[in-house]
Amino acid sequence: MTGPRDIEDLIELMARLPGLGPRSARRAVLVLLKKRGPLMAPLAQAMAHVALTARDCTICGNIGTGDICPICTDDRRATGEICVVEDVADLWAMERTGAFKGRYHVLGGTLSALDSVGPEELRIPRLVERVRDEGVREVILALNATVDGQTTAHYIADALEGSGVQISSLAQGVPIGGELDYLDDGTIGAAFRARRRV
Amino acid sequence: MTGPRDIEDLIELMARLPGLGPRSARRAVLVLLKKRGPLMAPLAQAMAHVALTARDCTICGNIGTGDICPICTDDRRATGEICVVEDVADLWAMERTGAFKGRYHVLGGTLSALDSVGPEELRIPRLVERVRDEGVREVILALNATVDGQTTAHYIADALEGSGVQISSLAQGVPIGGELDYLDDGTIGAAFRARRRV
Ligand SMILES: [Zn+2]
Ligand SMILES: [Zn+2]
Repeated sequence: MTGPRDIEDLIELMARLPGLGPRSARRAVLVLLKKRGPLMAPLAQAMAHVALTARDCTICGNIGTGDICPICTDDRRATGEICVVEDVADLWAMERTGAFKGRYHVLGGTLSALDSVGPEELRIPRLVERVRDEGVREVILALNATVDGQTTAHYIADALEGSGVQISSLAQGVPIGGELDYLDDGTIGAAFRARRRV
Repeated sequence: MTGPRDIEDLIELMARLPGLGPRSARRAVLVLLKKRGPLMAPLAQAMAHVALTARDCTICGNIGTGDICPICTDDRRATGEICVVEDVADLWAMERTGAFKGRYHVLGGTLSALDSVGPEELRIPRLVERVRDEGVREVILALNATVDGQTTAHYIADALEGSGVQISSLAQGVPIGGELDYLDDGTIGAAFRARRRV
């Protein structure tokens, strides 16, 4: 026992966040307890609000607060280019570079024989549909340089064969085994600009 | 822009927690977004509940969910001994050792000429009152081995002079400049058992 049950429960939930172990979760909760008015209450409210309103964009899989995300509804974004990413984190990383002005498609993972993740789980059929329906000229595969990422890239390239769309992937600048979300923005931007056709 | 405004706000609030910078706050929020049902909603609810119900114990300054904390209401805890700590974090650290079975008094900080924190801000008058009214035999000063901590210890020893109470402090085991909350439980426990009279 360190504190009342309710506070213990809160610490236990906080400890499930990445970057916070049991010890740092306790310290975070103590700071929250001291700043109940200025920090804890607004944080709880913001979190409850997002938990209630956030949803996956029905077009691209990005997370927004409506059925269609801000990027898909932004008509200043080019419709002829789709950048395919594994994860919302990768979309955010790409957006921070400012290098891409088109639309996205968030797979929500990679094909994995090990975890038996198939194309259906990954919105790949939806991507094929979009390429057909949205007059897409180029699909940029911005997938992690991991084995699963590259397997997925090849699978998508095969699935889009015959559609006439140009398929490219990020340039060699992405280090082997590297994950986009951990790279600096400059590296991602440069790799994007030097992208090559598959 | 990385995500919708509401999500940005949430990241910004999370980044104010100790141990989370802007980058790790973003990663934490992404995990929450993916686990909206199983993690984000319960965490928001637990946090809102604690923000609403937590309050400082009117006797000892510990944080509980009622006017009087679980330690002050627990009649198995000895009433003749009061362990004085700077902070609730230190109380929790002391409780984890299991070495102490009495009551606490949480100062809420240390005397500091620099930050103009005086005895009134620190519940020191309340401590003198408790020593007089609760039949206290021993006051154990479990304060950090910092300059401010030791200044505060001397001030309290002076304030209690003539009350007939025995005053002790943690043994030398606490390293110079060390803060209780960062020490391992064994060290705190040993220092407690070897406490010496002031
Ligand atoms: Zn979208
Ligand atoms: Zn209490």
